[in-house]
Amino acid sequence: VVNELTKLPTVGEKTALRLAYHMLTRGKKDAASLASAISEALSRLTLCQECFYFAEEHLCEVCSDPSRDTRTLCVVEKPADVLVLERSSTFTGLYHVLHGLWSPLRGVRPEHMTLDPLLSRVRRLKQETAPLREIILATSTTVEGDATALFLAQELEGLGIELSRLAQGLPKGGELEYADEVTLAHALQGRRGF
Amino acid sequence: VVNELTKLPTVGEKTALRLAYHMLTRGKKDAASLASAISEALSRLTLCQECFYFAEEHLCEVCSDPSRDTRTLCVVEKPADVLVLERSSTFTGLYHVLHGLWSPLRGVRPEHMTLDPLLSRVRRLKQETAPLREIILATSTTVEGDATALFLAQELEGLGIELSRLAQGLPKGGELEYADEVTLAHALQGRRGF
Repeated sequence: VVNELTKLPTVGEKTALRLAYHMLTRGKKDAASLASAISEALSRLTLCQECFYFAEEHLCEVCSDPSRDTRTLCVVEKPADVLVLERSSTFTGLYHVLHGLWSPLRGVRPEHMTLDPLLSRVRRLKQETAPLREIILATSTTVEGDATALFLAQELEGLGIELSRLAQGLPKGGELEYADEVTLAHALQGRRGF
Repeated sequence: VVNELTKLPTVGEKTALRLAYHMLTRGKKDAASLASAISEALSRLTLCQECFYFAEEHLCEVCSDPSRDTRTLCVVEKPADVLVLERSSTFTGLYHVLHGLWSPLRGVRPEHMTLDPLLSRVRRLKQETAPLREIILATSTTVEGDATALFLAQELEGLGIELSRLAQGLPKGGELEYADEVTLAHALQGRRGF
């Protein structure tokens, strides 16, 4: 058990020992529930055939929801990003999960991302009653995230769809004094009318 | 010496002891230079009569530089903010240091900020050959920073000058997964065309 637990991110050997000890002494019942919950999730969870987010059926919760706005598509790197965006509850459109970023240095090429399905989906979404108008390239503001957004922008060019990128600037509660120079430069350049 | 050192931010008793020990043994010469540097800075440093940033003469380095753009004024909370903005080298306009934020809860009222000098300076800057066109309310994105910006916006209303606020969004190198919900909401709302 300790061996397997240490394979989880942020779990070292000490934590693993403590967790395993708890599971096999006082927490026996919970440990059994945990084991079956993991097995069940693994057997039921697949990827949405439309957007590649986690799903239990053919379509995920977002894609099967008819109230979602089909005019905006938000392209993200990984399923966890969909989760945090949904939690911020400001986005009502659809998602597309790339399952990777373009990273020549690490040998990750466009073929490893869900790029072809994205392109054909975009063409399909343009035929909807509320046709696709904007694609938000919501990859992280890291080097690989920026490179991927640039790459996608080239691929999606000429389809007559607006492309946008998440705003860069000060985070909530951010003090100027502690902001890095690049972030400050973005915050200044992207300033908005009051 | 230890007593005085612990009054500095981020210096605890252990650090103070270590610093003091170094100063009074191997670092005697440097310690003497440090002492005289502090005394000299204290005696020479005043506040700029225009913008209230640190200055050694009547005017600070920014205000006495004729190449600065008099059409944009960036209002910040404290001198350190001018320093970080200058280091990001994207801003070529003038500054105004408030020396405080409006904080009713902590009893800090508008009179404690350099508000009156700001208002009269704005009126003067409108008469320049390159007249003032935009004021960037660059206070932090904290509750007090936002409240101060709102308050200033009311005071500066009706002068025919554009008011703006720094962009809020993902910091540089920011991963979606680790961003808080409010920041993500701002990043989405403030998204920019590619």
